Amino acid sequence: MAHGDSAPDGDTRFDTQVYAQRLARAAQLTGAAGLDAIVVGTGPDLRYLTGMTADTFERLTALVIPAVGAPRLVTPRLELAAVRDSAIPDLDVTVRDWVDGADPYALALAGLEENSVLAVSDSLPALHLVPLADRLQAPLRLATPVLRELRMIKDDAELAALRTAGAAIDRVHARMGQWLRPGRTEAAVAADIAAAIVAEGHTEAAFVIVGSGPNGADPHHEHSERVIGADDIVVIDIGGPLPIGYNSDCTRTYCFAEPPAEVAQAYAALERAQAASVAAVRPGATAESIDAAGRTLLQEAGLGEHFIHRTGHGIGLSVHEEPYIVAGNTDVLRPGMVFSVEPGVYLPGRWGARIEDIVIVTDDGAEPVNTRPHGLTRLEDDSR
Amino acid sequence: MAHGDSAPDGDTRFDTQVYAQRLARAAQLTGAAGLDAIVVGTGPDLRYLTGMTADTFERLTALVIPAVGAPRLVTPRLELAAVRDSAIPDLDVTVRDWVDGADPYALALAGLEENSVLAVSDSLPALHLVPLADRLQAPLRLATPVLRELRMIKDDAELAALRTAGAAIDRVHARMGQWLRPGRTEAAVAADIAAAIVAEGHTEAAFVIVGSGPNGADPHHEHSERVIGADDIVVIDIGGPLPIGYNSDCTRTYCFAEPPAEVAQAYAALERAQAASVAAVRPGATAESIDAAGRTLLQEAGLGEHFIHRTGHGIGLSVHEEPYIVAGNTDVLRPGMVFSVEPGVYLPGRWGARIEDIVIVTDDGAEPVNTRPHGLTRLEDDSR
Repeated sequence: MAHGDSAPDGDTRFDTQVYAQRLARAAQLTGAAGLDAIVVGTGPDLRYLTGMTADTFERLTALVIPAVGAPRLVTPRLELAAVRDSAIPDLDVTVRDWVDGADPYALALAGLEENSVLAVSDSLPALHLVPLADRLQAPLRLATPVLRELRMIKDDAELAALRTAGAAIDRVHARMGQWLRPGRTEAAVAADIAAAIVAEGHTEAAFVIVGSGPNGADPHHEHSERVIGADDIVVIDIGGPLPIGYNSDCTRTYCFAEPPAEVAQAYAALERAQAASVAAVRPGATAESIDAAGRTLLQEAGLGEHFIHRTGHGIGLSVHEEPYIVAGNTDVLRPGMVFSVEPGVYLPGRWGARIEDIVIVTDDGAEPVNTRPHGLTRLEDDSR
Repeated sequence: MAHGDSAPDGDTRFDTQVYAQRLARAAQLTGAAGLDAIVVGTGPDLRYLTGMTADTFERLTALVIPAVGAPRLVTPRLELAAVRDSAIPDLDVTVRDWVDGADPYALALAGLEENSVLAVSDSLPALHLVPLADRLQAPLRLATPVLRELRMIKDDAELAALRTAGAAIDRVHARMGQWLRPGRTEAAVAADIAAAIVAEGHTEAAFVIVGSGPNGADPHHEHSERVIGADDIVVIDIGGPLPIGYNSDCTRTYCFAEPPAEVAQAYAALERAQAASVAAVRPGATAESIDAAGRTLLQEAGLGEHFIHRTGHGIGLSVHEEPYIVAGNTDVLRPGMVFSVEPGVYLPGRWGARIEDIVIVTDDGAEPVNTRPHGLTRLEDDSR
């Protein structure tokens, strides 16, 4: 890892130089996309480019990056403390603050021609997009080509952060037997897991799915007051951000008794499917081919209709970001991409299972950042 | 309160009839605004209209409400469990689910003419707005006139929820002396307050500002590892949602010693300003007149430049929503509006103070839902 790229545990941003390089690359890609400027709202995009973590909604904070010239940050005066905490004071960025009553949209567009071709970041809300478009008298495009190209290929500092996050959530899974037991409610188990996620170095438990028995058959179930049974299959899908902002996300499936043959067979197919998708990861493969590699095996096992979601999603400053590992996505994988590989099987009203690792695309394959065993892990049942 | 409007503590939505009335009113206002339909994304607007709490980002979930005909919900198949948990199964709403690979924008626009006049909810992100606009071949408007009119005037069920939230956060402030002491860090105090916010009936501590000494001079400071001093003035601004989704938000300012004369005088002016703004609240007054009533007193006290934000914001399912109590907002107050009145004074690098109550506009004035004393509250200092 290059000198100056890393951030010690607990740091909330990288060195200034990391952001200076990203801004320069953003301007370059903006020009290459035929755009005069991009307008980046708050959230992960702004944090990626400047280290600024402001989270305003109704008051506009926007970073305007022209293809040529210095970027300009428009922000409410109230947010100047967040600006000072970011890399912006050390970057070649003009800061224009505004107070309630001023027109921040005019401020954002100042210096741009009326017929400029502008694009906005994915998460800019309609509340700001529509007035910007009205003042510009031109349709706005999505800045996706610029921002996804930047954020999708992780630099060394980001890869290090994602490996750290993966190791942290693996330590939580390694301790699962301390909390996950028959007779406890999903919610009680989830509270213990959430505390461990923070204790292992995350700033928060962003999501804690404890899907026991029939609840495991709903991929988006979180947790409930259901009491976990001794014969349950339990899906545990957990993660959260480190202080530097990068996220963990890892799923394992647990049980407390010898599973019925039907479950064991389906789980074995799932394990083969997850391994097949990981094995398919390499530069030059398409995103959809990773999905197909595992899905085909589940279809052959008669479980195709029970795998009801895509295989995975990119991860970084956002838990869900490009590239999406899904049928129809012909994007070609490149080194530095990072995404989840998480097939599942869901038997409505009965049980579900999922196996999820985050993997980094390397020069010739995949490097999983999660290393816990993939099997249906049998935990102690001290209630028997 | 009308029968069937209320929700017992712990309920996450109101009776179906509440949502049926809101949807009917939304269609009526959509027609009245000259719109053919509105498109409502996830978040508080969708929860307001249907009780659905889905929070998808990259996959479109949208409620399309035409001026004439039944509303249609477009949602990923993965979110059908959230649909079942909402009021939608009992409402006259058509549900169209989609799987990865399908075109949800075409689904959202199905049945609408190509030259339809459509408006979108404030929070719909560019990621969905731009493709919708492209398919429609027409600029989209903001659905603000429809949704703000609906959400700004609270019905009886909402007012009851906001009173419950106010009483809950008042109970936390009443216990402040248990946690807020010199020698502790802001972060340690904030953790105790956060636990109390949940213990008093909130689902989470959405924000916990502990601004001691110079940190109190930054209105958006949260908390830090700073050790609170015996001579500090401390701003405590706290709140969060109840299970039903409605929020509390209340600020009081504390000290541990006799404040210097300069602080006492400025605080007295702040207290008068807050009271003057509350006293100005009545149907027919403009939002900006409420801001001016208090601001004028602070200006006369020579503190005008130290009151660096607007006086308040509406509150409900969102912590910040219409009406905004700010210069330039000539909106006329009506019974059922609910907002904060929270002037502050900020002496950079030294200290700050703020007093905040949530008030309901009644038929002839204001009903504060927060009732703790407004003075600079002196707590025990057991370190002396």
